[in-house]
Amino acid sequence: MKILRINTRTREHRFEELGKYAGLGGRALTSRLVLSEVPADCHPLAAANKLVAAAGILTGSVAANSGRISVGAKSPLTGTIKESNSGGMFAQKLARLGILAVVLEDCPPKDAPPVNICINTDGVSVTDASAYAGKGTYECMDKLRAEFGQRTCAMLIGPAGEHQRLAASIQFSDPEGRPARAAGRGGLGAVMGSKKIKAVVLDDAGCGVVSPAEPERFKDANKRWVEILKSHPVTGQGLPAYGTAILVNIINEAGALPTKNFRFGRFEFAADISGETIAETISKRGGKTKEGCHSGCVIQCSQSYLDKDGKYLTSGFEYETIWAMGANSLIKDLDDIAMLDRTCDDLGLDTIEMGNTIAVAMDGGVIAWGDGKAAIELLRKAGTKDPLGAIVGNGCRYMAEAVGVTRVPVVKGQSLPAYDPRVVKGIGVTYATSTMGADHTAGYAVAQNILKVGGDVDPHSKAGQAELSKNLQVATAAVDSLGLCLFVAFAILDNDKGVPTIAELVSSLTGKPYGVDDVVALGAATLKDEIDFNRAAGFNAHHDQLPRFFSEEPLPPHNLTWDLTEEDLRGALVK
Amino acid sequence: MKILRINTRTREHRFEELGKYAGLGGRALTSRLVLSEVPADCHPLAAANKLVAAAGILTGSVAANSGRISVGAKSPLTGTIKESNSGGMFAQKLARLGILAVVLEDCPPKDAPPVNICINTDGVSVTDASAYAGKGTYECMDKLRAEFGQRTCAMLIGPAGEHQRLAASIQFSDPEGRPARAAGRGGLGAVMGSKKIKAVVLDDAGCGVVSPAEPERFKDANKRWVEILKSHPVTGQGLPAYGTAILVNIINEAGALPTKNFRFGRFEFAADISGETIAETISKRGGKTKEGCHSGCVIQCSQSYLDKDGKYLTSGFEYETIWAMGANSLIKDLDDIAMLDRTCDDLGLDTIEMGNTIAVAMDGGVIAWGDGKAAIELLRKAGTKDPLGAIVGNGCRYMAEAVGVTRVPVVKGQSLPAYDPRVVKGIGVTYATSTMGADHTAGYAVAQNILKVGGDVDPHSKAGQAELSKNLQVATAAVDSLGLCLFVAFAILDNDKGVPTIAELVSSLTGKPYGVDDVVALGAATLKDEIDFNRAAGFNAHHDQLPRFFSEEPLPPHNLTWDLTEEDLRGALVK
Repeated sequence: MKILRINTRTREHRFEELGKYAGLGGRALTSRLVLSEVPADCHPLAAANKLVAAAGILTGSVAANSGRISVGAKSPLTGTIKESNSGGMFAQKLARLGILAVVLEDCPPKDAPPVNICINTDGVSVTDASAYAGKGTYECMDKLRAEFGQRTCAMLIGPAGEHQRLAASIQFSDPEGRPARAAGRGGLGAVMGSKKIKAVVLDDAGCGVVSPAEPERFKDANKRWVEILKSHPVTGQGLPAYGTAILVNIINEAGALPTKNFRFGRFEFAADISGETIAETISKRGGKTKEGCHSGCVIQCSQSYLDKDGKYLTSGFEYETIWAMGANSLIKDLDDIAMLDRTCDDLGLDTIEMGNTIAVAMDGGVIAWGDGKAAIELLRKAGTKDPLGAIVGNGCRYMAEAVGVTRVPVVKGQSLPAYDPRVVKGIGVTYATSTMGADHTAGYAVAQNILKVGGDVDPHSKAGQAELSKNLQVATAAVDSLGLCLFVAFAILDNDKGVPTIAELVSSLTGKPYGVDDVVALGAATLKDEIDFNRAAGFNAHHDQLPRFFSEEPLPPHNLTWDLTEEDLRGALVK
Repeated sequence: MKILRINTRTREHRFEELGKYAGLGGRALTSRLVLSEVPADCHPLAAANKLVAAAGILTGSVAANSGRISVGAKSPLTGTIKESNSGGMFAQKLARLGILAVVLEDCPPKDAPPVNICINTDGVSVTDASAYAGKGTYECMDKLRAEFGQRTCAMLIGPAGEHQRLAASIQFSDPEGRPARAAGRGGLGAVMGSKKIKAVVLDDAGCGVVSPAEPERFKDANKRWVEILKSHPVTGQGLPAYGTAILVNIINEAGALPTKNFRFGRFEFAADISGETIAETISKRGGKTKEGCHSGCVIQCSQSYLDKDGKYLTSGFEYETIWAMGANSLIKDLDDIAMLDRTCDDLGLDTIEMGNTIAVAMDGGVIAWGDGKAAIELLRKAGTKDPLGAIVGNGCRYMAEAVGVTRVPVVKGQSLPAYDPRVVKGIGVTYATSTMGADHTAGYAVAQNILKVGGDVDPHSKAGQAELSKNLQVATAAVDSLGLCLFVAFAILDNDKGVPTIAELVSSLTGKPYGVDDVVALGAATLKDEIDFNRAAGFNAHHDQLPRFFSEEPLPPHNLTWDLTEEDLRGALVK
């Protein structure tokens, strides 16, 4: 395995040995590299920032659900370090090309044309992408496959990334070649845009899977691993049947579905946008309710959502997107919500950030509450040079500053996801203390608070939440470093054999001893790196807070407020 | 003296004794009150913030140049505590009404109409200001004087403040009733806008000056005070003759006039916009080259600048404005620059922030470099609901995020003023370490670095700059608390009798002992309060830095870079 460094100004590249980064992968690698090589006080869109896409430690092997990609940089949205995690085919193909990470460095002049980078077994080529400029990711994927071959995959940006919008995502193509998977959070698409890279295309023709050092041991471990995933009710049944949208009814029932920019905990029209309704709609229209975002996935939580005419509209249609575009903006038309999701993917924008931005725009009177068509029109501007588009594409905090809204649901500049912290206090701790800004994936305490997976912690009480969030944040950092899908956590939290089996996979893949302690140490060291970067960038415990309005406004129907103090929250930090 | 508190939601008011605020005034009072009463983590445009306008300790008396007003709040632009200081008639009339400070509290609902507050010897009245909504400050002043009397003065906001733009100023009327004096920095106009106050009008008919406890002693001290001011070459000759614009040629000659968004230290067309050219233009057109911003001013650095047809255009036409709108944006047409100044005053916007914003807009290709007419058109949008206007009115950082510019000359979100820190390193220390964000008035080391007033410290060397800036920051905080014009500092720095005479003025006014040490302690305690607030709001030494590009890009013609480390800068902080 090598690291591939590409200077985006000189267009030179070189392959390097792993050196001091040996033993790392995924988030552990992106965060260590950003901490080591990116000045904490640099402007995130200037030459000193680096964009790193890294495969996980297990990625490229046949280990189930090990094909996630970590993208890291200093975030233009939050100013913190950022790892944004995505599915798609990129990580597996990258690893199979013998490349653990691609590092995009430096910046070309502002007026330089965009380029595409293609990596195959012949090496690295950089080609003019002027014909791709300003185009949506769906059109670009068609063009890329026509230009570079139908079996290529890509990480790419849409017009929002080209315009360096602070909420721009990096999209990844799925097994069908659709750019529907996203490293959405933190505006990393703007970093890629600042480096004038429209797409990085991979062609792994001629490459095999990463072969284990101890094939039999690895094969046995993977067999157990698949069984663990398939036997858990969430990963074996719930997610395959309904995808993450199964949560709409569950979270609404818990009174924790943020509605109308976090004013209420239940949405009158939740049933219209529930996972059950979505599955029924997909089936009726002839779509697919079960798909994986990468090969080797045994959970299959994705889907193909078709429009009224039976034409493909979107996939990777997640609960958080449905919430953000739906309940939080009072939009109840599922097709409008699906079109908003599709538009985000096509323009290259984070769906969670955009949903919050639309809700704040509604709060500020820019468009009417619940008007899905107006929301689509507003969102489309974010792919243009229109000033209102700049305001939309720069996210929730930025929109609030434009329209004078003071209820701004962000931590460290990043929008809150789909679980109200006042009634799911464990996830509130994660929002407040994560190294990434508000991020549910950084420590998904919804599991213990609501789903009662991996334990049972009262969601309404602050007792135990800091400790819970800390442990989950460590586990998540490890999962993200191994290249595993976060959903495997549901299974391993309820199965004592989960983490030992993962350690066994690593050990038999690498041929070196690897135990449960090593998994934990990997997660903790990664968080420590991230905290170190953030401290150097000026963040401290005062920034590990939710906005004051969560402490001031009780959330119906439970009428609870956020009540964790700065002192309480310090308990969630890895020392 | 009383404190007047007005609840902007209930429209109730009450007069309070000074209580724990006794002995304070001006900035010492606004900062202590904000520290004590405003939660550091509140949203600056929400109900928990308070807007305080306070007269100085000497204000209302006949002490020369003692009529400055301090306005304080948590800043929506910087997130720090903020004291923004202005001339005009407000402070004197307030003190003569027996009111040391007005505190605007709480917030009305978003759809509430704006109101005017009138304070006279009969008390406080709150009246509907719907007819003033959206109107410029010049038109409003005419209307206010028609409604409340020709001898009234006002603090008021323009449309930018009503729209809660982050760079909105609070304007104050001068002795002629022109709203040309500004508490410009930090967006305090947006705080006033969030409280739906269009204007606070004062009528001091029936009030006399504040009488000293020991009249003869006070009279003697004031006589000496006037002599000290008149005998210094800067306050006695330079400022009266040319105003602050005398600095254009001086700073250009020093290679420290930031040109084209801080790319060069000299402007080819400096002579076109110099103080000498301005004085000549004013004289030729029949304007006035000498005016005071408030009665009792013996320096008279202001002027009436007339347009080509001899019609009044603007006053308070300062060096920093001329630089920001001129050299930094490559605009050389003095009438365009004067119109930009007028437009800022009329819309209620900070000229320094707007000049930097225009330069960054030019850097981002929004309008062409040097195009004064396009700049005026762009600026005018900031008084409307136009999305591009929102981007302009929210200042330099916000504009940079909209147009993808990474050379962003801000500290803590506030734009740098008119002296390049690479060649005037003392002022760079003040920009970096001030409690206010980048602010030349917080510790004007240009005096010792360039003007050689109050000492001689090599502007190109970092030696001694932190100590110099610290001492100046303490002195400035005291001057701002006493209600004195900052320009008195030129005289007192070169005259051993300066500070003792000020202490004597305070002592004879109040009838209590007051010495030189008390003046210093007042300044230091004020800074300490401000640092305490900022620490609680999450600011630390990492934020006391200039943007990296000042360390990376040498500034022609001296080709120096910024070279003070975080450690060096800590020396400028009051412990």
